[in-house]
Amino acid sequence: MTGSLTVIGLGPGSPDQTTPEARAAVEAASDFFGYGPYLDRLELASDKRRHASDNREELARARAALEMAAAGRSVAVVSGGDAGVFAMAAAMCEAIEEGPAAWREIDFRLVPGITAMLAVAARAGAPLGHDFCALSLSDNLKPWELIESRLRAAAGAGFVLAFYNPISRARPWQLGRAFELLREILPSATPVIFGRAVGRPDERMAVATLAEVHPDQADMATCIIVGSQETRVIARAGKAPLVYSPRSAGRPVR
Amino acid sequence: MTGSLTVIGLGPGSPDQTTPEARAAVEAASDFFGYGPYLDRLELASDKRRHASDNREELARARAALEMAAAGRSVAVVSGGDAGVFAMAAAMCEAIEEGPAAWREIDFRLVPGITAMLAVAARAGAPLGHDFCALSLSDNLKPWELIESRLRAAAGAGFVLAFYNPISRARPWQLGRAFELLREILPSATPVIFGRAVGRPDERMAVATLAEVHPDQADMATCIIVGSQETRVIARAGKAPLVYSPRSAGRPVR
Repeated sequence: MTGSLTVIGLGPGSPDQTTPEARAAVEAASDFFGYGPYLDRLELASDKRRHASDNREELARARAALEMAAAGRSVAVVSGGDAGVFAMAAAMCEAIEEGPAAWREIDFRLVPGITAMLAVAARAGAPLGHDFCALSLSDNLKPWELIESRLRAAAGAGFVLAFYNPISRARPWQLGRAFELLREILPSATPVIFGRAVGRPDERMAVATLAEVHPDQADMATCIIVGSQETRVIARAGKAPLVYSPRSAGRPVR
Repeated sequence: MTGSLTVIGLGPGSPDQTTPEARAAVEAASDFFGYGPYLDRLELASDKRRHASDNREELARARAALEMAAAGRSVAVVSGGDAGVFAMAAAMCEAIEEGPAAWREIDFRLVPGITAMLAVAARAGAPLGHDFCALSLSDNLKPWELIESRLRAAAGAGFVLAFYNPISRARPWQLGRAFELLREILPSATPVIFGRAVGRPDERMAVATLAEVHPDQADMATCIIVGSQETRVIARAGKAPLVYSPRSAGRPVR
């Protein structure tokens, strides 16, 4: 008897940004795996079973969820934002590839969500209105040198950059080093957006220039968008500025 | 008297993937601007006014919407997917920056949506599970040489690539040229995903290798995801394969 496993992206935080599809997938499942704070957002009915785990135990969590689905349960694995963007979807696939053949037979489905950079961008204007890259600054699973080479390649070619996992207690210096490196490539007036907890009561948005940004402006839950040389800021009296990247572009900066 | 203007991302096509926030913003508006097929999806009540336009007239549409909002109406500008990703949000900001000062006073808000690449990725597995770029292949507003330099930079640095606007009647050769260029950089077995109309009755998904792909597999409404050298395919008996990019990565390919 084989059950089902649905990987669900809940969106950035407000229930208003969770799709009806994601909501229906939550209703249909019996067992829930995920990082505790994401499970808390679901306000699960008492007949649903909760299997919270630490945010760093992705592969162990994936395997436990697959085992339960293979045993016939209706399992949901939940992520904030979109599960396919630096969240649980890739870990689930890794576990399936390395696991027993029976795991490939599970009714496995992924439900997309609004990922953090889209919510942050919408609050700020249209900074992702032209070509852009999404990049995790965590060097837990890739060498820092690779991250630097990607930053150089992407910024040098004129992509706007969105950073996930920009900083943490265990990774305190990487974001500052990334800003230093980008200051060598991009104009000092390049706009940088910090967005945290968008749509939640503790939402925090800030816009600064690349010359003046400091890593202290971010924490683990912040999504950072660094403009390209084309990105512009529109000042507005009594309102937050609008940051946007025009649809047209000229030549690469180097 | 100044009205409001809300730019709304409706998601990829299924109403199940339109957020409650987007739905509420549609309810609140009186006048709707957008490409005809997107307006059709709204099934607007008879008291709401519809201002459909051609998909290529983005800046003219933006100005008309702003003029109406400045005159006191509750205006909505709708896009498929996320309006901030190769859609109306950047054109709106361009119009505001170039327009009269009064346009900066409009109550201007953007509502994010699920952009095509997220919906396509969720159908295929987790191809965007690692660092990735989103790139428009249209050379209407940027020189083709710039697109080539970005393809080289991004693929060479190990980013997964998501292509928007891959091909059209007026741009018939660019996608083929992009595939040729990528074949010089990436392994021939690199997975390529074609996703069209995800969540709609005419949904079409296909997975092929970079060696065998052909531009005929795409049209204007297709979102294409090209893997990195790390992207993997999991075969499943009787089911579509899962394509995913592992969370960990080694070194750049060149």
